[in-house]
Amino acid sequence: MSSAAQPCTDWPLLQAVSSLADLRHLPIERLPELAAQIRAFLVAKVTAHGGHLGPNLGVVELTMAVHRVFDRPEDTVLFDTGHQSYVHKVLTGRAGGFDRLREAGGLSGYPSRGESGHDVIENSHASTALSYADGLAKAQRLRNRTAGRVVAVVGDGALTGGLALEALNNLGHTPQLPVVVVLNDNGRSYAPTVGGLAAHLTALRTGRSDPAHNVFTELGLAYLGPVDGHDVVALENALRRARDLGTAVVVHTVTVKGKGCEPAEQDAADRLHAVGIVDPVTCRPTAPVPRSWTSVFSEALVEIGRERQDVVAVTAAMAGPTGLAAFAEAHPQRMFDVGIAEQHAVASAAGLALAGMHPVVAVYATFLGRAIDQVLMDVALHRLPVTFVLDRAGVTGPDGPSHHGMWDASLLSVVPGLRLAVPRDTVTLRSLLREAVAWDRGPTALRFPKASADPPLPAVATEDGIDVLTSSGGPDVLLVSFGPLAGECVRAAAMLERRGVGVTVADPRWALPVPPALVELAGRHQTVVTVEDNSRTSGLGAALAQLCADRKVPAAVHTLGLPRRFLPHGSRADLLTWAGLDAAGITRAVVRARQRTFLSLRDESLS
Amino acid sequence: MSSAAQPCTDWPLLQAVSSLADLRHLPIERLPELAAQIRAFLVAKVTAHGGHLGPNLGVVELTMAVHRVFDRPEDTVLFDTGHQSYVHKVLTGRAGGFDRLREAGGLSGYPSRGESGHDVIENSHASTALSYADGLAKAQRLRNRTAGRVVAVVGDGALTGGLALEALNNLGHTPQLPVVVVLNDNGRSYAPTVGGLAAHLTALRTGRSDPAHNVFTELGLAYLGPVDGHDVVALENALRRARDLGTAVVVHTVTVKGKGCEPAEQDAADRLHAVGIVDPVTCRPTAPVPRSWTSVFSEALVEIGRERQDVVAVTAAMAGPTGLAAFAEAHPQRMFDVGIAEQHAVASAAGLALAGMHPVVAVYATFLGRAIDQVLMDVALHRLPVTFVLDRAGVTGPDGPSHHGMWDASLLSVVPGLRLAVPRDTVTLRSLLREAVAWDRGPTALRFPKASADPPLPAVATEDGIDVLTSSGGPDVLLVSFGPLAGECVRAAAMLERRGVGVTVADPRWALPVPPALVELAGRHQTVVTVEDNSRTSGLGAALAQLCADRKVPAAVHTLGLPRRFLPHGSRADLLTWAGLDAAGITRAVVRARQRTFLSLRDESLS
Repeated sequence: MSSAAQPCTDWPLLQAVSSLADLRHLPIERLPELAAQIRAFLVAKVTAHGGHLGPNLGVVELTMAVHRVFDRPEDTVLFDTGHQSYVHKVLTGRAGGFDRLREAGGLSGYPSRGESGHDVIENSHASTALSYADGLAKAQRLRNRTAGRVVAVVGDGALTGGLALEALNNLGHTPQLPVVVVLNDNGRSYAPTVGGLAAHLTALRTGRSDPAHNVFTELGLAYLGPVDGHDVVALENALRRARDLGTAVVVHTVTVKGKGCEPAEQDAADRLHAVGIVDPVTCRPTAPVPRSWTSVFSEALVEIGRERQDVVAVTAAMAGPTGLAAFAEAHPQRMFDVGIAEQHAVASAAGLALAGMHPVVAVYATFLGRAIDQVLMDVALHRLPVTFVLDRAGVTGPDGPSHHGMWDASLLSVVPGLRLAVPRDTVTLRSLLREAVAWDRGPTALRFPKASADPPLPAVATEDGIDVLTSSGGPDVLLVSFGPLAGECVRAAAMLERRGVGVTVADPRWALPVPPALVELAGRHQTVVTVEDNSRTSGLGAALAQLCADRKVPAAVHTLGLPRRFLPHGSRADLLTWAGLDAAGITRAVVRARQRTFLSLRDESLS
Repeated sequence: MSSAAQPCTDWPLLQAVSSLADLRHLPIERLPELAAQIRAFLVAKVTAHGGHLGPNLGVVELTMAVHRVFDRPEDTVLFDTGHQSYVHKVLTGRAGGFDRLREAGGLSGYPSRGESGHDVIENSHASTALSYADGLAKAQRLRNRTAGRVVAVVGDGALTGGLALEALNNLGHTPQLPVVVVLNDNGRSYAPTVGGLAAHLTALRTGRSDPAHNVFTELGLAYLGPVDGHDVVALENALRRARDLGTAVVVHTVTVKGKGCEPAEQDAADRLHAVGIVDPVTCRPTAPVPRSWTSVFSEALVEIGRERQDVVAVTAAMAGPTGLAAFAEAHPQRMFDVGIAEQHAVASAAGLALAGMHPVVAVYATFLGRAIDQVLMDVALHRLPVTFVLDRAGVTGPDGPSHHGMWDASLLSVVPGLRLAVPRDTVTLRSLLREAVAWDRGPTALRFPKASADPPLPAVATEDGIDVLTSSGGPDVLLVSFGPLAGECVRAAAMLERRGVGVTVADPRWALPVPPALVELAGRHQTVVTVEDNSRTSGLGAALAQLCADRKVPAAVHTLGLPRRFLPHGSRADLLTWAGLDAAGITRAVVRARQRTFLSLRDESLS
């Protein structure tokens, strides 16, 4: 595809293949044609709607081959890290859905059991599929269903995750476990895969290592490969051999991330891993990309790194998406990419801190759950100065239930000694990051959303470290804003003022431990309402409410946040509105809370 | 040591070695004598006070050799899973402390930075040391400190943990990283180590596999061994060679767990991994062991397994301590030990459940943090019927900060759709376990303490699923007991009744999601106080308080539980008293809460 090429809008063969049965009946010599049309289709749809491009272009032949060799219900096919499931969706009758890819109510960007019986697991955190496969295969054996195979498609990047390695240790141990691990080795997660395992796979790929002895065979699995992952005939042959083995086996396929789309193949950063809405030929954004919170963090950390030689950065295979790539460029010796290995990211950061460094571990909020034990035990118990930067905190939007960052603040709330900052805008993000990195007596964390950087919201006053964003001066309502919904809170305050309700909007900047000054402030108001872009359960408002109860604050604290359920994909704005976290929803909640206060007083006077 | 032998009470050479300098000056030919005395000392002290026996008897020579070859401050020595650090404690001047081993204020059973500058990491969850070592060594390199070595002593059992495998992937990848991994291969965690890696180590140990190609070299580390871990000369030679390599290297040492103590060497279950107070010769308990919650769970699950063929059990290398060994004996096909791999335990259970099984994952509460992401994403997002049985929940006592089960209920509070049961006694443990395993629409969890089974506490009434344990019939005080502190609550109620305060003690049995009937009940009382053996922050009381605020309950909800800090080791009873969670503490808190209610009403009438 040269830059002068017109985008393809025609895929007649693909349109004729509307089910897996159609795929299986297609003569093998027509598969390259089908593959080309699937690629053209994906480029057209993903560039028009945004989504994961590079990973899916790489697994076209592989997915076709898997579905031609293995069949439901006898066999079960699992996709690790579900963003590589688009081809699977196309081949299981969902091509039509791509016109509403990742839109609310439209096609999910990940496997979805609600969409199709062909989707078995929805979780799109990496490295899980081999464990699922282990459990599924053990259950099959208990039920004496020996014919079926469990097939797990997993990337080389995902194999750097401890969960996948734990699973390999188990798969290799159980005799006659009918699991076929289809290793999609493209040498990358986002960036090139790191670690000794990646080097070992490279040696196998390039024939520098004898395939008879490798890490898989030594763990007790069989090994087939390496196989060209774009050669359908070779793939089908290898998969048939694997199927007939009847034991746990790794089929090592070698693929090119972004295959068949020149801008993706040429993209050094991540082979166009994921794109927004972009030009279908150049794959460049069609509109200017608004400045993000991530980019502000990225710049700020480079600056801090220039001033302090002890500041180091740690990423779990996501230097680009977390904004650490700029730090890596400016301070290459002080950047550590540990692979998709959040546990090790945190525990090795503890080691760096023990030796006098100040590590900044940047990770998506949703992936913090992978390492909460290490935050508690390896970092907090040792009171080590590690700063966690939690990007994509709160509602993330089109990535859906496994990617919303809904629980990080709740999980961190129990960590003794940890201080959590909740910047309301990118100006406070900069200042809070500096404060966090300056704190040397224990861990700190900052959380911020996947969103464009709105104009800053200046404080009208600061009282004992609490920023006051707007103040009625009266005792009516205290609205406590934990983080980026401060703008909605200020708008809600304006709506309420118009209804004669005096509102003070306070931003504590540091949410955990709960600032005593915030409890003081709550004690001077009749109604207290908290707002956070995090689980309402065990969230920041709940922590404030508990302290207010301890300290005899008369007002009940009403906590707004995300409900205790999984949220679907959709736009961030729509989901926040649905959860009642926009200005109108906050206004309604304050009105209800005030009624509530009067009701409860009346109840008490009656009792 | 035959059964007729007298326990040794004399260790003159050990008494002469009061520092690492003394150890290093000792001629190598005297080391076997020292080793024998250390073993006699450990058997005498550990059998008298309780503690970890088998692991420490296995590492006597290994610890001596490590400390003779490596020296602080240039070198750093780390012990993975700190229960193997007793010999290290003896050799670093702390032999005297063993007379108060694991007592409040006495010697910790794990490394403790407060005790000694020779203790670097305190966390005693398994599989962390290689990650710490990775971070420490990277920091040393940044500071151009090239002479020092970071030594991590790690068991073969701990290598089945994903965190350790993530670390190996990183250690093998970084050139010239001066890390010496001392692999203490005794073929066991508690039970024999499981998995392909263990089989591979056995092949290396027995010479059936060519040591030139092994899983470590393929990940990029150097490998030395196998070495007899009880031969000090061989050990010192291997460690010196490893030190001089200046690159990441695994020294594969082969040891015998329980070495030198016949009852330990002969113990099939776990080589006397940990003991209570036992006879120093036979290592049998000197007093009858009281019936534990664990044993009641153990029996109940065997029964359920007899009735339901779809019930399977999963353990992360702790079949004995969690009580699953009985299930394994009764239903061997349906028992899965996955190694020290909590993430895989949970994710493979998700796979088992997808295939129609009902897995029961039994794990210590403190280790649940290792797998909370899998509980959320792999189990709850898929609404899979997996039951988590959390033993050692709450204050565990002498095992200290990394073993108290303080956070499990808080972490689980955010998991959508998860139901959490909190049995108050072993009778309700049985019934709640049955209810949990009968629930097929999503995950369930039960938590119970490391404690002896007290007499059951019958309900005086049951109202909408809430057990009432004692009731004044009046509206004064509702005391909500979440779990095993119900007896303390009932005693507190009696104390309060004597002071003229009417108290109803309610046990919701299922704590999450918060039962609506509990909110109703709270609404009918002037003062509500909750009691839980879990973190107060984000705990079960806080969840009730939040719902009470939503539903206009007039009374503030006062939440008692464990504070947001790490708790030291000590007896369970003493620590609960210290935290105000005994009857006297609960009584005081209720009195304070009632004063608080009146104060806040007065405040409101003044405003």
